[in-house]
Amino acid sequence: MRLNVINPNTTRGMTDTIAAAARRIAAPDTHVMATQPAHGPVSIESHFDEAISAVGVLEEVANGDREGADAHVIACFGDPGLLAAREVTRAPVIGIAEAAFHMATLISTRFSVVTTLGRTGIIAEHLLEQYGFRHHCRRVRAAEIPVLDLEDDGDAALKRIIEECRRARDEDGIGAIVLGCGGMADLTDEIAEAVGLPVVEGVTAAVKLAEALVGLGLGTSKHGDLAFPRPKAFVGRFEHLSGTTK
Amino acid sequence: MRLNVINPNTTRGMTDTIAAAARRIAAPDTHVMATQPAHGPVSIESHFDEAISAVGVLEEVANGDREGADAHVIACFGDPGLLAAREVTRAPVIGIAEAAFHMATLISTRFSVVTTLGRTGIIAEHLLEQYGFRHHCRRVRAAEIPVLDLEDDGDAALKRIIEECRRARDEDGIGAIVLGCGGMADLTDEIAEAVGLPVVEGVTAAVKLAEALVGLGLGTSKHGDLAFPRPKAFVGRFEHLSGTTK
Amino acid sequence: MRLNVINPNTTRGMTDTIAAAARRIAAPDTHVMATQPAHGPVSIESHFDEAISAVGVLEEVANGDREGADAHVIACFGDPGLLAAREVTRAPVIGIAEAAFHMATLISTRFSVVTTLGRTGIIAEHLLEQYGFRHHCRRVRAAEIPVLDLEDDGDAALKRIIEECRRARDEDGIGAIVLGCGGMADLTDEIAEAVGLPVVEGVTAAVKLAEALVGLGLGTSKHGDLAFPRPKAFVGRFEHLSGTTK
Amino acid sequence: MRLNVINPNTTRGMTDTIAAAARRIAAPDTHVMATQPAHGPVSIESHFDEAISAVGVLEEVANGDREGADAHVIACFGDPGLLAAREVTRAPVIGIAEAAFHMATLISTRFSVVTTLGRTGIIAEHLLEQYGFRHHCRRVRAAEIPVLDLEDDGDAALKRIIEECRRARDEDGIGAIVLGCGGMADLTDEIAEAVGLPVVEGVTAAVKLAEALVGLGLGTSKHGDLAFPRPKAFVGRFEHLSGTTK
Amino acid sequence: MRLNVINPNTTRGMTDTIAAAARRIAAPDTHVMATQPAHGPVSIESHFDEAISAVGVLEEVANGDREGADAHVIACFGDPGLLAAREVTRAPVIGIAEAAFHMATLISTRFSVVTTLGRTGIIAEHLLEQYGFRHHCRRVRAAEIPVLDLEDDGDAALKRIIEECRRARDEDGIGAIVLGCGGMADLTDEIAEAVGLPVVEGVTAAVKLAEALVGLGLGTSKHGDLAFPRPKAFVGRFEHLSGTTK
Amino acid sequence: MRLNVINPNTTRGMTDTIAAAARRIAAPDTHVMATQPAHGPVSIESHFDEAISAVGVLEEVANGDREGADAHVIACFGDPGLLAAREVTRAPVIGIAEAAFHMATLISTRFSVVTTLGRTGIIAEHLLEQYGFRHHCRRVRAAEIPVLDLEDDGDAALKRIIEECRRARDEDGIGAIVLGCGGMADLTDEIAEAVGLPVVEGVTAAVKLAEALVGLGLGTSKHGDLAFPRPKAFVGRFEHLSGTTK
Repeated sequence: MRLNVINPNTTRGMTDTIAAAARRIAAPDTHVMATQPAHGPVSIESHFDEAISAVGVLEEVANGDREGADAHVIACFGDPGLLAAREVTRAPVIGIAEAAFHMATLISTRFSVVTTLGRTGIIAEHLLEQYGFRHHCRRVRAAEIPVLDLEDDGDAALKRIIEECRRARDEDGIGAIVLGCGGMADLTDEIAEAVGLPVVEGVTAAVKLAEALVGLGLGTSKHGDLAFPRPKAFVGRFEHLSGTTK
Repeated sequence: MRLNVINPNTTRGMTDTIAAAARRIAAPDTHVMATQPAHGPVSIESHFDEAISAVGVLEEVANGDREGADAHVIACFGDPGLLAAREVTRAPVIGIAEAAFHMATLISTRFSVVTTLGRTGIIAEHLLEQYGFRHHCRRVRAAEIPVLDLEDDGDAALKRIIEECRRARDEDGIGAIVLGCGGMADLTDEIAEAVGLPVVEGVTAAVKLAEALVGLGLGTSKHGDLAFPRPKAFVGRFEHLSGTTK
Repeated sequence: MRLNVINPNTTRGMTDTIAAAARRIAAPDTHVMATQPAHGPVSIESHFDEAISAVGVLEEVANGDREGADAHVIACFGDPGLLAAREVTRAPVIGIAEAAFHMATLISTRFSVVTTLGRTGIIAEHLLEQYGFRHHCRRVRAAEIPVLDLEDDGDAALKRIIEECRRARDEDGIGAIVLGCGGMADLTDEIAEAVGLPVVEGVTAAVKLAEALVGLGLGTSKHGDLAFPRPKAFVGRFEHLSGTTK
Repeated sequence: MRLNVINPNTTRGMTDTIAAAARRIAAPDTHVMATQPAHGPVSIESHFDEAISAVGVLEEVANGDREGADAHVIACFGDPGLLAAREVTRAPVIGIAEAAFHMATLISTRFSVVTTLGRTGIIAEHLLEQYGFRHHCRRVRAAEIPVLDLEDDGDAALKRIIEECRRARDEDGIGAIVLGCGGMADLTDEIAEAVGLPVVEGVTAAVKLAEALVGLGLGTSKHGDLAFPRPKAFVGRFEHLSGTTK
Repeated sequence: MRLNVINPNTTRGMTDTIAAAARRIAAPDTHVMATQPAHGPVSIESHFDEAISAVGVLEEVANGDREGADAHVIACFGDPGLLAAREVTRAPVIGIAEAAFHMATLISTRFSVVTTLGRTGIIAEHLLEQYGFRHHCRRVRAAEIPVLDLEDDGDAALKRIIEECRRARDEDGIGAIVLGCGGMADLTDEIAEAVGLPVVEGVTAAVKLAEALVGLGLGTSKHGDLAFPRPKAFVGRFEHLSGTTK
Repeated sequence: MRLNVINPNTTRGMTDTIAAAARRIAAPDTHVMATQPAHGPVSIESHFDEAISAVGVLEEVANGDREGADAHVIACFGDPGLLAAREVTRAPVIGIAEAAFHMATLISTRFSVVTTLGRTGIIAEHLLEQYGFRHHCRRVRAAEIPVLDLEDDGDAALKRIIEECRRARDEDGIGAIVLGCGGMADLTDEIAEAVGLPVVEGVTAAVKLAEALVGLGLGTSKHGDLAFPRPKAFVGRFEHLSGTTK
């Protein structure tokens, strides 16, 4: 199968990190196509960044479909554009936040999230509510590191993430930790070893869920509210989207 | 005060409808600036349309701020880009869905929503959940009319909306009806008269809530998760957003 | 418009405080009629006080209607008698707790309440649940000051409220604070300045919401469960209510 | 033990009905003191009626305490004044709505409520939410009979209640029915026989719960938010309450 | 009436403790039949222990029915086998966790649970959710003592339980404490005295609730999802259950 | 990997059906070990059947571990013994109900369940609540066919299931259907084709989720409340479990 892993920000280094993690975990017959939008923010740390990035995500889903993708992964922990992406494709689309939450509930009764910046905690909270996992998550914690520090100052970032994970382990009454940023995809093993309880990372979780859905022959439902959008005109810089959404 | 009413779709006729409704209800000293994005879909009837429209909404918020807006209204019932918009301005930002929901709970214990297309019901449901009004809404109903039919085939659309509102009144055990589309802003009185119970419309509700917040001296909190986004680089067609989000 | 602001306790000094705050914030064409019951407790600090005060609130709503009130405000943070009041009038009725909660959710994603006595926290919790804002409120805090100390020992009370608000700001992960007592209506600005994030106060919020509803032409629904009560006999000291509730 | 069963309305006939039901079910050593307020509505069919009746309930709780009551029952399905009543006494206080809900969950997984008037359904819904039983109740149904018809036109009322209970049994997927009015206390057996599944009635349920609590030596907690109200002045027709609430 | 009190573990000493507590609290005409399974774990401290113990509970319910039991109590705080037990008998079946929760909500607005081992907290949480009491419980606490220490090292256990109860009283904002283990049944009075607020214990609570239901003539509903299981074949060591479940 | 698929009932024919479905969907390098308990009911259609079957499930998990299983699937839609099974193994354990629910939320916003007997709907409801999917499921429907009819009268059963699925599709406003019985595992394709929207079946979903978890290197958390049970004595017919639960 062909798996289109989309890094919603425009930082190629993070795409590489994500792609490497995806490829390490993918099945032998899964071809990982890693990409990032041509247009958008270099990192995603707010609702604003997310809203802009969603446009690029949707374009990359369309690109992926044209290149024969069997499934798509949105590799930013806010799952930007997830439901919109599901509307425009028959393929399954998996967000890494939802992927991590689902997997965490299968191996523990309660988990905590450790994310980058405290201000993005509200995004995780809203997703937990929408997905149904509000009560499975004990706490959303932040290491208070900007996303790109994961690229630029990896050792210091790792240290702070491990510290926060240990606090989660010791204080939250949990069985597992969810890493709250796609940029942490290459740190999972080190963190898990340092913390000593299962650490669920979204990129890798999403890859396996996408493989699972494709294996089941399940694609996004085109019956009801995720059907293709009604074709219509778009104007201005989005004119190329006109009439194409079927 | 200067009130920036943003029609998130690009159909000028609908902007005019919305602006007229906003001006009719606005206080004498409220100057209504009505606008729509230069870029985006002609109507919003899906998550996809919403995601694209959010970019235009954010640009119009920024434009409005430059023109001295004291508050902003997002005049599409899905409240596209609401939290992102709140991040980028000190002014209050009100979505018309939230506005209508809030007002409906102040005059009734339970309400129903009558929207355009059934497929957008899920958007209303997610908003009801996030805002806390899940249990105040008995049912999300659809008249099954495309949004632009409100402009192009107004009489037939009105007739179907009234029929659905009457069913809501007779079957749902409610005290009020919420109209689920900004394009219905000029129909409120006719519908209310035909149906015989309070009908809450979002554009007008949002105008009065925006006036209320400005009157109270309350703007969007810049403490915590709605603080200005961290400045950063944007690339490609969004390059103009670089470093500007403070 | 004529706005009937009801202080549910019988302390005239607090009525004056509330009325002054209401008048400062009211639109030029809003005539604020401030009143308090002739019968009831001098302050409201328990379910018991609230239950007794509700009778006076209902009488003042009826009085207000006779004097041509276009809307009513119940200016005690427990919103005593709110749904009963809505039944007996066509005018909108706004409680100051609900008003503050609604406004707080429009400018922040999460808020905390700072009220007078810890024992009344349960009243706020029940209201948050009923109104739908349980998850928008991080914490209900108390400054542990009796209500009338706000009148009698204002400076000490203010100091303690500010301290508790600062703790809320620093510990709760919030964007706004809701003041949990009508008697704090004159302290809002001082508190907001001292604390440095938006402070929402219920009396002023309710005045603007009442103006908004009247501006929209929306009154309490008389369809369904807030219709006028069935007329009936009352006996004893409530005999004067017989047959009058239509 | 001495059990103070309070009919919150002022109709003596209904007090007699309630008292008879209570006495039939009470343990041999339970002395049932039945009473109704001297002041208030002849029936309770709205939030307004409920608010007025709460005053009388509180006075009857105080009277009962003076006469040595070991527990109190509030025999109106809206549980008027329940938390206020708990504040002013060390004895347990049981509302008949809560009593019926609790008992119904012990013998079935899901129940429906059959009450008198549709307009009071919202009162039951709010209680279900506050008590935690929202999801245990499939539906709140109304036979659409005024409360006093239970006294004045008993046969017709019984017929309509049985019809509605049968609909509940056949359509709601339930295991038990809760009768939603204290005035139905003498009809339980007939209804249960006609409907063929367990029928839970609140007055009788409350009597047994009160006996259970007294048997356990458990009274209303005086630690925290149900502690006695702070003593204070009351004015006007409630002056006799001054300083007495400890 | 004959009340079948089942200790789900196989430790006779704990059965004796439970039986003594049940007999002390039971009405004079209640005959307490105390029993424990012939097969199963000596204590219940995990989901695993609970699953095995449920088989014994179901056999003891059947035994109890054969000996004329009018009601059954499952005296382990996880309520093992509760719904299954309700299916196989017409008599009421009460779990001690649910019994304690119900009673605690009748005398306080919020309570905390103090149980034995932290790892069983999740069992209490799931029950609170299923029964509807999630928001009535502030916190599930553990004294971190193995269950059988209650038998073998009673004084040390009591000391630690009291310490944890005091922390609950001082930190949780509660009005009552629920003891989270059947083996604490004989400690209630001492704990309540040491802690100074109402302490609700499940065995005694369940005895009184069972008496209440029997007094009301209410048994487990045989309409709908608690009807007797369809008779069928069982094989292997459960062959004796074949065809008997009506 | 070695995948231990446990049919919790003792009907070998159903094990074969389940095993065949599992093998068809499993990855080439997944070795499916299919088994059923030696002791227990021939079908599971009640809480009682489920409680008995859980013992056999736990024994088969232990057997599977001894034979080198990398993961376990519990192939009955009530997920009997799921948390207990997780306690006794380091391997992942997946229930087919949870598996189907998780997968359905990844391809649709709302789904309905079509199960065998109406009486088991409550089991699905409780699982939906515990797992967090209450609001993602519009309705739990039953075809009203006994489980073994799936084996013995397959064509008639299939016809009724398809009819109910079509009603779900047409009335429930859903995007996908979840099949509510392990015995339907071989019918998925036929049903999906006849109904025309995605049909999620639990056995196949669980196989892919198990493979996904193993691929991720994630096992059941042994930190916290799913740690191995404390070793202890078991008596009677469960004596062989003594001291073995580490």
